[in-house]
Amino acid sequence: MTQGPPRTVVVVGTGLIGTSAALALRRAGAEVWLSDADPAAAALAAELGAGQVLPAAGVPGGPADVAVIAVPPASVATVLAAAQQAGLARSYTDVASIKAQPLAQAGAAGCDLTRYVPGHPLAGRERSGPAAARSDLFLGRTWALCPAPEAAPDAVAAVTALAVACGAEPVLTDAATHDRWVALISHAPHVVAAALAAQLAAPAVPPEALQLAGQGLRDATRIAVGDTELWRQILTGNAEAVAGVLTAVAGDLVRAAEGLTGTGSPHSSTSPTSPGAHKELTALLDQGRAGVARIPGKHGGPARAFTAIQIVLRDQPGELARLFAAAAAAGVNIEDVGIEHSPGAPVGVAELSVRPDAAGPLITALADAGWPVRR
Amino acid sequence: MTQGPPRTVVVVGTGLIGTSAALALRRAGAEVWLSDADPAAAALAAELGAGQVLPAAGVPGGPADVAVIAVPPASVATVLAAAQQAGLARSYTDVASIKAQPLAQAGAAGCDLTRYVPGHPLAGRERSGPAAARSDLFLGRTWALCPAPEAAPDAVAAVTALAVACGAEPVLTDAATHDRWVALISHAPHVVAAALAAQLAAPAVPPEALQLAGQGLRDATRIAVGDTELWRQILTGNAEAVAGVLTAVAGDLVRAAEGLTGTGSPHSSTSPTSPGAHKELTALLDQGRAGVARIPGKHGGPARAFTAIQIVLRDQPGELARLFAAAAAAGVNIEDVGIEHSPGAPVGVAELSVRPDAAGPLITALADAGWPVRR
Repeated sequence: MTQGPPRTVVVVGTGLIGTSAALALRRAGAEVWLSDADPAAAALAAELGAGQVLPAAGVPGGPADVAVIAVPPASVATVLAAAQQAGLARSYTDVASIKAQPLAQAGAAGCDLTRYVPGHPLAGRERSGPAAARSDLFLGRTWALCPAPEAAPDAVAAVTALAVACGAEPVLTDAATHDRWVALISHAPHVVAAALAAQLAAPAVPPEALQLAGQGLRDATRIAVGDTELWRQILTGNAEAVAGVLTAVAGDLVRAAEGLTGTGSPHSSTSPTSPGAHKELTALLDQGRAGVARIPGKHGGPARAFTAIQIVLRDQPGELARLFAAAAAAGVNIEDVGIEHSPGAPVGVAELSVRPDAAGPLITALADAGWPVRR
Repeated sequence: MTQGPPRTVVVVGTGLIGTSAALALRRAGAEVWLSDADPAAAALAAELGAGQVLPAAGVPGGPADVAVIAVPPASVATVLAAAQQAGLARSYTDVASIKAQPLAQAGAAGCDLTRYVPGHPLAGRERSGPAAARSDLFLGRTWALCPAPEAAPDAVAAVTALAVACGAEPVLTDAATHDRWVALISHAPHVVAAALAAQLAAPAVPPEALQLAGQGLRDATRIAVGDTELWRQILTGNAEAVAGVLTAVAGDLVRAAEGLTGTGSPHSSTSPTSPGAHKELTALLDQGRAGVARIPGKHGGPARAFTAIQIVLRDQPGELARLFAAAAAAGVNIEDVGIEHSPGAPVGVAELSVRPDAAGPLITALADAGWPVRR
C-alpha cells in the first residue's frame, strides 16, 4: 500500500532526530506539532521552523496522521503508551536505535501494537539537541521499519510514507534481525572504539605519545564520542547481539596477541616465529581488508574508485574559492573533497576526488591555472 | 648541534615514504640519488622529480651526507649493512615504523651504529608506491629519531637536519619508548580496526546489513586497509608492546560483553541489570570519551573548537566554486571542509568549519548570496 506524505504529524521529543524529522516533514508540506518533556526544547525547535508547539489540549482538529516518538530507547514504551492514551495520532512510530526491546515493552505496557510501527532512521550526528537538527539528515539514508505481525497495513503504509517524506529509503525487516545488524555495524563498533580510545586516557600515557597520533587514530576512535547514557541504553537494550560481536572481536584480539608473544594454550600455534602464528595474524589483517571493502561507499553500492588529486593550499581566505573556480572552469564535477592541514604549517593540501576520466582534464586545467598539483 | 640541510642524499627504497622524502629534500635544495631493488620504481621516482637514479658505481663525487634506508622493517638491517659496506654516505637513517628491532638487527649484522640514527616519520597514506608520493607528506609531522647511545653527535645532527629539511618536527626518544608509544597510537589500533572490520566479512553477514552502515563505521575501520605483509612485519617487530595493548582492549571488551549478558566469573558484577554491570560499561564509555579528547587536533594541541556550518549542494560542476567564492567574498578563512553525500541523492551537504567568530559573518554572507545555510 502506498500513500502520500502525512498531512499532520506530532513529534514527541525534539532532540536531534525528532527536530530533524520535523524540519524534513515541514519541507514536505506537513503540519507538525512539537512536544518535549522540556518545554524549552520544544519552543527552540518551533523557533527553528520545525513546527508549532503542541497545545496542552491536544492536536487541534483531531488526531494527527502519525506521531513520531523520538525519545531515548528506554522511554519509548512509556511515552508511546501515554501518546496512545491521549489519542495523539492514528499511527505511531519511534526512532530508537534498538527495536526488539521497545516493541516488547510496548506490548507489556498495553500499547495498541496494530497502530505502532517501530522505526530506526540510520542517521545521526556527533552533536545532539534541536539546534543540531537538519532537514536533510535523512536524505538517502536507510530508515528501518520493524512492524510486529499484528501491525495494521495502513499503519505500516503511513509510517513508510513518513520515512519517504523525510527523504529516506525505508527498509522493512523484523526487530530481531534489525538489532543483530545494527549490533554489528553500529553498537559493537561504538564499544570497540571506546575500548581503544580508553587506552589513550590511561595516566601512564604521556602527552608526547599522543603527539605522534595521526588522522588514522582520530578516525578510528571518533565514534567513541557519544552521549554515555544514551549509549548505555542502546547497548543494554541490544545486549545479546552486541555481546556476541564484542566477544568475537575480543577473541580475535587475544589470538593476535598470543600469536605475537607466543603465549596462550599449548594447542594453538603460539611461537611468535612459527608460520602458524603469522598465518593467523595475516588472515585477520586480510579479513579486515575484506570487511572494509564490503562497506558501501557514499553513492551506495561498494565504494567506487575515484581518483584523488592533491593541491597545495596556503592557509588564507579565498584560496579554496580560487581552486574550485579553476575546477569549475574545467567543467569537472568534484565527488569529494578533503583538506589536510599539518600542525602549525602555513600550507595545507586539498584532495579532490573525481571520476577517473575527469582526472586528466582537471590536472591540466589546474596546472594551466598555476596550481601546484599532484595526482 | 644544528646544521643546515643535507647537500647530498641517497634514498634506498623509492616507495611512498622514500620518494616523498626525496621530493621534499629536492625542494630543500639537496642533490638526491635514488635506488630501489626494483629499477622501475627508482626510474619512476626519478621521473616524478625525486632525483637521479644512483649509478652502479656509487654516489658520484663520493659519499652522500645522509643515506635514507626506506625499506620494509624486516629488511632495514640487511640493506643498511650493504649500504655501509658500499660507503654510500657519512650518516644513515631509516624510516621504519618500529625502531628497537631494526636497531638490534643492525648491531647483530655488524653495522656501524655510530653512524646510524634510526628514524620514523609519523606520516603516511592509504596508498603506496612512488606515484603516491608527496613532497609535503612530512610537513609539520613528528619525525621520531631514536639514536643508540653510541651514535655520533654529528650523525644525529645530520639526520635531524634531514628531517627538518623535509618539513617535519624531529623528536628525540629511545627506541623502546618509541615502540611503546606507536603500539598504542598506531599498531594496536590497526589490529583493532582489522578485527572489527573482519566481523563484516563473515559470510553470514548479508549485504542488507552493511547497507545500514554509516560514516562512523567507515571511519572506525578505514585504517584496516593497509598492506598485510608490511603490517605483519610491523606488528611482529613490536610484538610485546602491541600484544599488551590488544590484551587490554580485549579485556575491556570481554568485561563489557559479560556485563551486558550477565555471564562471566561469579566474582564480577554480572547481572545485566545490576548497577555494577552498567557502571563498568559506562566507565568504559566515559574513558573512551576522555581518550578521544586527548588526541591533538589538526593544528596541534588539543582539538580546537571550530564552528561547523552546513550548506546543501547540488551534485553538479561549479557548485563548490560558487560556494567558496561566496565565502571568500566574506573574507572568511575556511579551516576545514567536508562533503556529505547521501547514497543516490541529487544533493550533498558541505560542512565548513570556521573559527567561532567567523561563523556569523559567513552565515550572513552565504544567506545573502542565496545559499540554504544551517549552522
